[in-house]
Amino acid sequence: MNTRIVELRKNVPNKNDTLAEDLRSRFHAAGVTVFNWVSSPGTGKTELLKQTLIRLKAQGFHSAALVGDLETDNDAIRLAESGSPARQIKTHTLCHLEADMVERNLEGWKLEDFDFLFIENIGNLVCPAAWDLGEDVRIVLLSSTEGEDKPLKYPKLFHTADAVVLTKMDLAGPCEFDRHKAEANVFAIRPGIPILATSAKKGQGLEELCNFLVSFRKDA
Amino acid sequence: MNTRIVELRKNVPNKNDTLAEDLRSRFHAAGVTVFNWVSSPGTGKTELLKQTLIRLKAQGFHSAALVGDLETDNDAIRLAESGSPARQIKTHTLCHLEADMVERNLEGWKLEDFDFLFIENIGNLVCPAAWDLGEDVRIVLLSSTEGEDKPLKYPKLFHTADAVVLTKMDLAGPCEFDRHKAEANVFAIRPGIPILATSAKKGQGLEELCNFLVSFRKDA
Repeated sequence: MNTRIVELRKNVPNKNDTLAEDLRSRFHAAGVTVFNWVSSPGTGKTELLKQTLIRLKAQGFHSAALVGDLETDNDAIRLAESGSPARQIKTHTLCHLEADMVERNLEGWKLEDFDFLFIENIGNLVCPAAWDLGEDVRIVLLSSTEGEDKPLKYPKLFHTADAVVLTKMDLAGPCEFDRHKAEANVFAIRPGIPILATSAKKGQGLEELCNFLVSFRKDA
Repeated sequence: MNTRIVELRKNVPNKNDTLAEDLRSRFHAAGVTVFNWVSSPGTGKTELLKQTLIRLKAQGFHSAALVGDLETDNDAIRLAESGSPARQIKTHTLCHLEADMVERNLEGWKLEDFDFLFIENIGNLVCPAAWDLGEDVRIVLLSSTEGEDKPLKYPKLFHTADAVVLTKMDLAGPCEFDRHKAEANVFAIRPGIPILATSAKKGQGLEELCNFLVSFRKDA
């Protein structure tokens, strides 16, 4: 599942990647499964993650979340309403998260207490592609409101993804979103990658998404 | 109108800014008014620009367009359907346009033939903020599908904007977009900035947008 990320790391070895690899080892040793969620601004990452945290908690899993934004604490506040701990990483001018920001923001958390750590990246389809955060699984979210062409226009990010989650599918009708076309464009960049369709608002696909996330647990 | 851009340039003098200033002088000497359109991926920049080009042409104005994407020529092809010349700038890995890309892609065009040059930037709410392209007016587009909070989360770009255009307003209902809240968030970052509301699909606000763009002509 991590082939792409490993390839990327081999191609561009740097300080971030070394730290990300250290983080990955720490996460594995602690038994926590880590997801890095990346998308455009406004795809509904935070709402979907909040609903996901609520469902995983109801199933007895312990999760934590880190959420990146240039400014505001709004998203961490929203995520914490799920009952799971959430911390905001404010990057101010920076357009992506880096491994050292993740590391700093883990301080005081006992990783062994968590089954899952979710990292919600800055809304950006370009720059986060190049920054390994020590995650096990990189999930790229694509909203039905954005159009079907984004995988072709931003191939690098989709190329480094391990799964794609379609969001706001309740708006597919009004937005005239062609799911098959979008999926074909995703497959053109990453053949065979898992694609899940969701609507946080309507609860569509959330059970499948949670099952998918849980399937990455070593003990699953 | 250019106060913000000038301030930014003073704060971070560099090669790009020097070239952008040269470009701006060339544009002014040629009598062409230049707009830099910036937004998230999927706000409908290209469709709105195409409709704008068609309307301006019908009014007797001559326009040209440069459009940036990491990959694909799709948008230049779509824009050229308006009857105005359009060129694609493919940045491959780069997350924003720079002044030298604009300069290179003007080659062979006689700027004196144009009233307007539109530059459609890469879909990204962060990085384009820092790159002056020699434009007269920077327009930030915000889609009703993205939510009202984006100005607060990406303040730098909105701070450097000269105008904000709300897009996909036909989807405001299904998306439960609160226009007043969005406008209040824009004003919190840039008090008094002009805000126009549009729907390229329904033709809403296009006349007002074209009038607004024409008002920047020295001969208007």
